[in-house]
Amino acid sequence: MTTDPGTIPAHALRRVIETALEEDAPWGDVTSETLIPADATATATLAAREDGVLSGGGVFVAVMHAVDPAIDAVLHAEDGAPFVAGDVLATVTGPARAVLRAERVALNLVQRMSGIATVTAAYVAAVSVTRARIADTRKTTPGLRAIERYAVRCGGGHNHRNSLSDAVLAKDNHLAVLLAAGVGIGDAVRAARERLGHTVHLEVEVDRLDQVEPVVAAGVDTIMLDNFTPDMLVEGVALVAGRALVEASGGVSLDTVAAIAATGVDVVSVGALTHSARALDLGLDIDVAV
Amino acid sequence: MTTDPGTIPAHALRRVIETALEEDAPWGDVTSETLIPADATATATLAAREDGVLSGGGVFVAVMHAVDPAIDAVLHAEDGAPFVAGDVLATVTGPARAVLRAERVALNLVQRMSGIATVTAAYVAAVSVTRARIADTRKTTPGLRAIERYAVRCGGGHNHRNSLSDAVLAKDNHLAVLLAAGVGIGDAVRAARERLGHTVHLEVEVDRLDQVEPVVAAGVDTIMLDNFTPDMLVEGVALVAGRALVEASGGVSLDTVAAIAATGVDVVSVGALTHSARALDLGLDIDVAV
Amino acid sequence: MTTDPGTIPAHALRRVIETALEEDAPWGDVTSETLIPADATATATLAAREDGVLSGGGVFVAVMHAVDPAIDAVLHAEDGAPFVAGDVLATVTGPARAVLRAERVALNLVQRMSGIATVTAAYVAAVSVTRARIADTRKTTPGLRAIERYAVRCGGGHNHRNSLSDAVLAKDNHLAVLLAAGVGIGDAVRAARERLGHTVHLEVEVDRLDQVEPVVAAGVDTIMLDNFTPDMLVEGVALVAGRALVEASGGVSLDTVAAIAATGVDVVSVGALTHSARALDLGLDIDVAV
Amino acid sequence: MTTDPGTIPAHALRRVIETALEEDAPWGDVTSETLIPADATATATLAAREDGVLSGGGVFVAVMHAVDPAIDAVLHAEDGAPFVAGDVLATVTGPARAVLRAERVALNLVQRMSGIATVTAAYVAAVSVTRARIADTRKTTPGLRAIERYAVRCGGGHNHRNSLSDAVLAKDNHLAVLLAAGVGIGDAVRAARERLGHTVHLEVEVDRLDQVEPVVAAGVDTIMLDNFTPDMLVEGVALVAGRALVEASGGVSLDTVAAIAATGVDVVSVGALTHSARALDLGLDIDVAV
Amino acid sequence: MTTDPGTIPAHALRRVIETALEEDAPWGDVTSETLIPADATATATLAAREDGVLSGGGVFVAVMHAVDPAIDAVLHAEDGAPFVAGDVLATVTGPARAVLRAERVALNLVQRMSGIATVTAAYVAAVSVTRARIADTRKTTPGLRAIERYAVRCGGGHNHRNSLSDAVLAKDNHLAVLLAAGVGIGDAVRAARERLGHTVHLEVEVDRLDQVEPVVAAGVDTIMLDNFTPDMLVEGVALVAGRALVEASGGVSLDTVAAIAATGVDVVSVGALTHSARALDLGLDIDVAV
Amino acid sequence: MTTDPGTIPAHALRRVIETALEEDAPWGDVTSETLIPADATATATLAAREDGVLSGGGVFVAVMHAVDPAIDAVLHAEDGAPFVAGDVLATVTGPARAVLRAERVALNLVQRMSGIATVTAAYVAAVSVTRARIADTRKTTPGLRAIERYAVRCGGGHNHRNSLSDAVLAKDNHLAVLLAAGVGIGDAVRAARERLGHTVHLEVEVDRLDQVEPVVAAGVDTIMLDNFTPDMLVEGVALVAGRALVEASGGVSLDTVAAIAATGVDVVSVGALTHSARALDLGLDIDVAV
Repeated sequence: MTTDPGTIPAHALRRVIETALEEDAPWGDVTSETLIPADATATATLAAREDGVLSGGGVFVAVMHAVDPAIDAVLHAEDGAPFVAGDVLATVTGPARAVLRAERVALNLVQRMSGIATVTAAYVAAVSVTRARIADTRKTTPGLRAIERYAVRCGGGHNHRNSLSDAVLAKDNHLAVLLAAGVGIGDAVRAARERLGHTVHLEVEVDRLDQVEPVVAAGVDTIMLDNFTPDMLVEGVALVAGRALVEASGGVSLDTVAAIAATGVDVVSVGALTHSARALDLGLDIDVAV
Repeated sequence: MTTDPGTIPAHALRRVIETALEEDAPWGDVTSETLIPADATATATLAAREDGVLSGGGVFVAVMHAVDPAIDAVLHAEDGAPFVAGDVLATVTGPARAVLRAERVALNLVQRMSGIATVTAAYVAAVSVTRARIADTRKTTPGLRAIERYAVRCGGGHNHRNSLSDAVLAKDNHLAVLLAAGVGIGDAVRAARERLGHTVHLEVEVDRLDQVEPVVAAGVDTIMLDNFTPDMLVEGVALVAGRALVEASGGVSLDTVAAIAATGVDVVSVGALTHSARALDLGLDIDVAV
Repeated sequence: MTTDPGTIPAHALRRVIETALEEDAPWGDVTSETLIPADATATATLAAREDGVLSGGGVFVAVMHAVDPAIDAVLHAEDGAPFVAGDVLATVTGPARAVLRAERVALNLVQRMSGIATVTAAYVAAVSVTRARIADTRKTTPGLRAIERYAVRCGGGHNHRNSLSDAVLAKDNHLAVLLAAGVGIGDAVRAARERLGHTVHLEVEVDRLDQVEPVVAAGVDTIMLDNFTPDMLVEGVALVAGRALVEASGGVSLDTVAAIAATGVDVVSVGALTHSARALDLGLDIDVAV
Repeated sequence: MTTDPGTIPAHALRRVIETALEEDAPWGDVTSETLIPADATATATLAAREDGVLSGGGVFVAVMHAVDPAIDAVLHAEDGAPFVAGDVLATVTGPARAVLRAERVALNLVQRMSGIATVTAAYVAAVSVTRARIADTRKTTPGLRAIERYAVRCGGGHNHRNSLSDAVLAKDNHLAVLLAAGVGIGDAVRAARERLGHTVHLEVEVDRLDQVEPVVAAGVDTIMLDNFTPDMLVEGVALVAGRALVEASGGVSLDTVAAIAATGVDVVSVGALTHSARALDLGLDIDVAV
Repeated sequence: MTTDPGTIPAHALRRVIETALEEDAPWGDVTSETLIPADATATATLAAREDGVLSGGGVFVAVMHAVDPAIDAVLHAEDGAPFVAGDVLATVTGPARAVLRAERVALNLVQRMSGIATVTAAYVAAVSVTRARIADTRKTTPGLRAIERYAVRCGGGHNHRNSLSDAVLAKDNHLAVLLAAGVGIGDAVRAARERLGHTVHLEVEVDRLDQVEPVVAAGVDTIMLDNFTPDMLVEGVALVAGRALVEASGGVSLDTVAAIAATGVDVVSVGALTHSARALDLGLDIDVAV
Repeated sequence: MTTDPGTIPAHALRRVIETALEEDAPWGDVTSETLIPADATATATLAAREDGVLSGGGVFVAVMHAVDPAIDAVLHAEDGAPFVAGDVLATVTGPARAVLRAERVALNLVQRMSGIATVTAAYVAAVSVTRARIADTRKTTPGLRAIERYAVRCGGGHNHRNSLSDAVLAKDNHLAVLLAAGVGIGDAVRAARERLGHTVHLEVEVDRLDQVEPVVAAGVDTIMLDNFTPDMLVEGVALVAGRALVEASGGVSLDTVAAIAATGVDVVSVGALTHSARALDLGLDIDVAV
């Protein structure tokens, strides 16, 4: 988790925040506008109510500023840093109406992102004695991929391909169609190479050991061994013999990941990092109001 | 779960699908375009790999049609219906490239929505012998609120307010500001009523029993008892004495919800329905390809 | 008119202004760009040419700033304040090209909003000795609802529901369909309550006295008496007997509103506040140019 | 009114309808979804409750189709046609929920457009014995200019320039800046001609008779005589002597327009066509429901 | 080229830059984020590698600021100014990652715009001894018309109509349809005048000398002589005899334009200004990095 | 050119066409609406006026359909096919107003795309006896990258990386910053590999022969030899010795490309394919009108 997680593209972050704020108050915030004096100011703290790894501190601040640039925000921890329950992660001071109107959207984002970073960090820790890296998948929340991929990096994980557009990954369903069309995997890979740009990575998924040799021989960059047991993975890694990167996927949990990583694979991809992470319990508490 | 869950607003669904499809392939799907013959067709089935409650069958179809209107899709179950592992929930037939390009986005949505419906149904079942209803919160995924609220209804739950714009809900942070401003809750509620439209519901959260009487006396529509034990809830319900609806919130889990609902409250709101539901395990399998 | 009218949601205002500015000059302002020296500056005043109530002062300024943040703008009156012909409401100083390019869009908005506030204030004044409030309707200009609802509040009026999404209002056409389907109003209301979130207000419109009792007995929150004469309204209010709020609608004009409000109804809704308000005569005059 | 009013640009109409529908039901229509059976169908008629000129029949239909393409709609009158109270202008048949959800947006548009067409037709009729045409201005509703200009044409009026981008119109405020900069109107017009594309029309407003000669001598295409009395207009037209088109503006009402048009001017522009037209009273009545 | 080229409408420029930046890095810039230290700063110069006329200096700066407002940018030449190979046109200093991420989009725009300005200036110079002006056409790059028209003005050219909406230009295909419909050009022009707003310029294209008289007699504002030889143009200009502006089009190249302009036409329109201008060779060189 | 060029992503094409159509007629097409009878129909042909390679046939049809789905369009050649002057490439039949309104936008796109395909095909032909492929660059028209990359493929070229997001390409400016920061290329590449996803291609540009060995030794996937003479390229290829792909760039023209490709490089990238291709001369001629 000491690695710089990079950044979230500005246009992606802006769109998420604008959409979320409009969705959460299409006609304004009737609670704060009718209950809270217009000139009241408040200081609030973002507090951890359980242990975890932070992701989205800057997003939390960006939501506050999107509601009112007059809100003053200070982060007390960096994205990627671990924290324990009770830690104060950020302090914001500004017009009370604005802080209260921004609260839920800001929390929804930082809780979700920190949830992803925290579970990712757990997977990364579990494989730290191996050479394998933990990678995410395309099983992200629709509309939030850029943010969730960043959260994975905050947890020390690596990103798989961005999208369908920047790497080939032929999975079981693709192979089923090829098989029906009577096209051999070798011919298919060679034809694809001929058409693809020279920067496009080419990966193929197999779910049986006997598929390994023809796929590797076809000249793929990475071979994905799907739903292999650790024993089969060891055998698969031996068969590949360094001719391609080896990615393990399927049936990966915190209980199984260490054994999987210990087989010598290069990458372990985990859909659960993004499709099933729960929101971390962070809260915003108004400490001082004037 | 026999209740009609209603619909997802068309503009909201369209925006989610367009955003997700563009995000998942800004430059097209290099895998299917280079590996799959342009004239190949495929029949694929959406299969349940665990038990659950369906939500998003229509969304799954809408994603397929957004990619290619020529895809023929048949749903075998209705949203809100329970299913068991192995059930086939839908069948799609169409150009193989289109089906493969749509697969992940369609799955990401139906898995997430069914995850929410399934956990909601579990909560609803747990309180079925009481008069309480299970309600969602604003702790939804940014950009997906309309879809997630629909999923809650598919699970038999009820929706809380849409957003900050259509009901007042004064929470602890609001009360802290009022307190600092020296405004009594009674005066605050009366002033708000004076300004609010006559259709706006007014709810106030309390976290102590001694706050109940002044809040109810101020004329709220609903009082939220936050983080009350079942015993305190019983006492709270008695204090309210039918003068307002009573909503319990905070610390609600599948373990505790039955006891909470049995206290006589009208509504139990559960953030976990949306902020921490995991994706249900549904898969798309190509059965026939030509 | 002494009440704080609240605010216009930022996203709604931004969208209206961006749309209006682009619509008014898709290829730039050929008049000021070819006639006015680039370095000319101007001071202009927003002057009232008839009496009225101000709404949109901040919008006027926001348009100026959207064209050029370098324009300095000072408001001399607050939204909701009455003014008389000849009053200077705002002063702007800045690059002459920018002021001239912004002029018409800024005026179009503040004139329209002040027109609504002014007519609303006239209705509010006409009922001031009664307990009734003046409310707007959904008969707003497409795309400008947020702005027009704010203008109604500036005139001392109240907002009815935001949209179709946050309160039930069953009107004659709904009842006609229910009747044809053989569904009684009592059953329909009970079934709706069962499905609706607990914060959703439920209102039903009737146009005959004999409909009042069954509707009120069904447990509505508000009953709308549509096109009732004052005598019928008195009778209707008596029949309701405090069991629901009573809203009068239909055939309301400045000539009739006092008599309608004097019947004891809680709300008088007036479509004309927004669907037929004329623009108030405000003008921008360049006083000094350098 | 026998002239073909042309069309509304498709992108403009689509944007107005999408914005209006989303604004009117961000979270769906809770009334029809909870009260109206999903399988109910209805036939409704668009009826005139006062005399007028139709504009927006196609827009009314387009709103219905935007909500549900399954709605069958038949127009009984063409845009631009006069009608009398009681006339049935359109009939729609389709799913009752969809018809009821579309009703208000469809009415808001056709009522507003027909209001503009009707008042325009009154102005056009008032000047029909003269050679003058009635033209609109840029005093349109922000976001609705394309639609309102079309409504003016439906009433037999003519459109002035589209926007600031396609014709020069130097008004009093421009001349004030030029004066301050010490630039003569003749030099300014010549310099502008030098820079402008050859298709750009050039019009200058004057408010005194002594300004007429220098402006016309500068070679403008149209001279606008602002707030001239009919006598002054006669004199102005004589001074111009056919060297430019003459447009009268300012202080034009249905009471004064005939006298203004009778002075021999070519164009009478009327801001009130769009900035103060009231919505015409049209209603949608469900006749048959099944 | 001494004329002020005016401005690019703000909304158009913003949209182009946002679209281009998102297109060029949907998921961020993996090169600079992984190779360049976050705290590195750089000073870079925009240098001319061939002679030309500048257009887009402000656009270049706007791209830099859109990526990071902290970038400091200084222009050393004004749009419309000629330069020679080796000239330094701008200097930027700021975070190295931001400068590198903005580089290509900024260059793509300024190179393209300067390419258009440079070729336009060549045409303008070629006709400088005549009274003809060089005008652009609607043959612009989709999405970039506002920017390309500005570039034409930077080169000393004039803009033709903005779009299909602000001037009539009846070309051969229109005349073919009219002919087939049995409508004479005179009647067609008169009918159009009757319907068009008084500010709309009316131009008709002819491709034979015998068409000139009927078109001019119909009262057009401009007649376009398409694909006429210089001799035919001389004859055409004589036939028109000052009753309309004369525009030559078709087959115009740097080799032929002087002869065409010398025939006495008012306007020579050149599609190649925008549809075939090549990007000028400008480069960004990092001079200092810290 | 026999290779399937794949497709343009639907969202990208839709956005380009919508933007272009709105830009070209914000207020409608005043020419066809006032001159062409509403019921006139026309048949028009897309004809080649010079030799070339087609790209954008489907785009041409999509523009027609976007204006009016009632237009019937038939393509007579496939994208990627060569044609000669005089060939008829497509025929469209439909409402004359719609065909005329769509004409310019449709032509602007297909002419530009075919221009790119044609010049690409010339480069591809020039290197056909070598093993090198011709690749495009990021020097594309802002907003049109997806379309232009497709056009390159229609000409038989290959696409380089999509954007800054899917491959590392360290150019001279990046190396200058690294040098200033005292970071060696080997360390930089190793650190980047550690952070990048395993599917990200890593390419480094060098402009001197002595840089080749350290860069290749650092383990790059591709080395770009920038502005090398053919002799230097031969030497560079020998130094690389198959350890990475070799890309030649800089100073590539139709005159030099054959010699460059003959050096044994794998890829020759050519900015001119997109930044300086001229529009091909294609025309739309109305053949029959009724």
